[in-house]
Amino acid sequence: MALGEFSLIDRYFKRLASPASMPGMVGVGDDAAILPISPGHKLVVCKDVLVEGRHFFSDVAPDALGHKSLAVNLSDLAAMGAKPIGCLLGLGVPTINETWLASFAAGLGALADRYRCPLIGGDTVASEQGIFISVTALGTLHEKQPGLLRSAAEVGDDIWVSGPLGVPDIALRILLGTLADPQNRLPGLRVGLERPEPRVALGQQLLGVANAAIDISDGLTQDLGHVLQASGVGAVIDLEQLPVDQRLAVFDPSVVRDAVLYGGDVYELCFTVPAQYRPRVIAVGESLGLELFRIGKVRRQPGLFAQTDGSLTELKPKGFDHFARSAR
Amino acid sequence: MALGEFSLIDRYFKRLASPASMPGMVGVGDDAAILPISPGHKLVVCKDVLVEGRHFFSDVAPDALGHKSLAVNLSDLAAMGAKPIGCLLGLGVPTINETWLASFAAGLGALADRYRCPLIGGDTVASEQGIFISVTALGTLHEKQPGLLRSAAEVGDDIWVSGPLGVPDIALRILLGTLADPQNRLPGLRVGLERPEPRVALGQQLLGVANAAIDISDGLTQDLGHVLQASGVGAVIDLEQLPVDQRLAVFDPSVVRDAVLYGGDVYELCFTVPAQYRPRVIAVGESLGLELFRIGKVRRQPGLFAQTDGSLTELKPKGFDHFARSAR
Repeated sequence: MALGEFSLIDRYFKRLASPASMPGMVGVGDDAAILPISPGHKLVVCKDVLVEGRHFFSDVAPDALGHKSLAVNLSDLAAMGAKPIGCLLGLGVPTINETWLASFAAGLGALADRYRCPLIGGDTVASEQGIFISVTALGTLHEKQPGLLRSAAEVGDDIWVSGPLGVPDIALRILLGTLADPQNRLPGLRVGLERPEPRVALGQQLLGVANAAIDISDGLTQDLGHVLQASGVGAVIDLEQLPVDQRLAVFDPSVVRDAVLYGGDVYELCFTVPAQYRPRVIAVGESLGLELFRIGKVRRQPGLFAQTDGSLTELKPKGFDHFARSAR
Repeated sequence: MALGEFSLIDRYFKRLASPASMPGMVGVGDDAAILPISPGHKLVVCKDVLVEGRHFFSDVAPDALGHKSLAVNLSDLAAMGAKPIGCLLGLGVPTINETWLASFAAGLGALADRYRCPLIGGDTVASEQGIFISVTALGTLHEKQPGLLRSAAEVGDDIWVSGPLGVPDIALRILLGTLADPQNRLPGLRVGLERPEPRVALGQQLLGVANAAIDISDGLTQDLGHVLQASGVGAVIDLEQLPVDQRLAVFDPSVVRDAVLYGGDVYELCFTVPAQYRPRVIAVGESLGLELFRIGKVRRQPGLFAQTDGSLTELKPKGFDHFARSAR
């Protein structure tokens, strides 16, 4: 039986998070949960777990791993438009390797400093088998701000992404040995896989501009699919408009297209914005020095379709599934 | 090299949680961290990780495991005097066993309902090797309330514990096969090990009464030692006053004494209270139907000493250490 993590959470744990138990809460299933903690403020919390051999290679540079452990959680906060306030670290390690720990802490700490998201607690335990990392990140939203919910996309919205896609998946394929790298592009590309930059400032600046947002951790098709499903809408994206990292031009175009449509671990934001706010999105991008790409449009008819040469093809998710995918 | 979890956190991660990075924060090292999140409220957060083969047996009843995963975190909130508001679950499982997951979720959910601490998010991943569980619990404190800090014990305070000690350690020894159980006491005793009851209401009622508090997760000697060290004080406890579960009377008294002084996994609170508040502590205990035990006194001279028959013996920690102890 191969259930994905979404089905798992849905089936066994979602009912534990009933709206009745916490009025005003937006529960399990979005990038992060929102709690109306006090007048004036809402708390935003998320938790992502990384496991050795599944989410990272055993020989990954420990400072990159420390960076990524926090980055994937900051990305979830960004996808809600939240301002980070702190994080907690759960860490299981088989042995105490001081060099490794110091480097891991340095990588996590540098990102925590940059986004003012200090480590405020945690638990470190022995794990006989392998390394696992469970980071919880906390952020805040003003009480009048609904946040960038997955369920808030509206018919007619433009669909945007915050940067080029495809690099992490191509880097992963090279590292797994399933894609040749004759021009030795890996050293540049693996930075995209191992040191994603969470779009923290962008998320906050999209408040009041964007309707819905999600981070592309599981692949554009799967993640945009979550937004469409939660919002009860459909979409058409224009394959010609999808931003592709130009360093990928040396690889087989069909492999690159798959990486762009289905490849996970990207941590760019995908967001939907009413068409009349197009100039505001462009202004936000310019203020942050970030090129933003308009890739499609939300429509009433359900399903996610790709448009190319005037014809439409339905895109079915084949993104990242922690239980279906072979270990890395 | 055998560093304990405390040294690990201290050495590599504590400096990441500098007060400068979060004014008003009480950082890594207490049962939970306190953040001044908004006018009127402080947020209290904690995270405890449980690993198969180390913190629980592989064949533990899954509903008991779900209960305990949340209970140990609610206990940390209780030790701060915080009111629970929600929790997040990070779960790694090797395979998808629907019966196991449903039972685990039921155990966690029942405790979450009882303490109004709904599951608000999480991440479930495949873990090739074994089960690990990382729960984060969130609570609140009123802004005028400092919380029950480890560092707040005062010279002259009485030292109290919230219930009998020793049961979980004796149950563990029987389960490990290192202690004989001729009268088959295990069925009753293992409930104490596997289904600890967090002292959530007690913690909140001790606000304004107690100075310092901690939960006895790592053993009375070690945990009270943390309070004394953080507060820059010492203490004398009266061995005759230590509450021992009467079901332990059938075991060797020296084994029981060790279990009471050093055995972890108890999740009773140990707290210090100015002597003039003694009647208030008794009233709190009566209002909750909980027998509270006064076991000693805080004094200026450093170190933790046990008094018996008029002589003093220094107690050195040999409590739970996740890296020194053999796997369960």
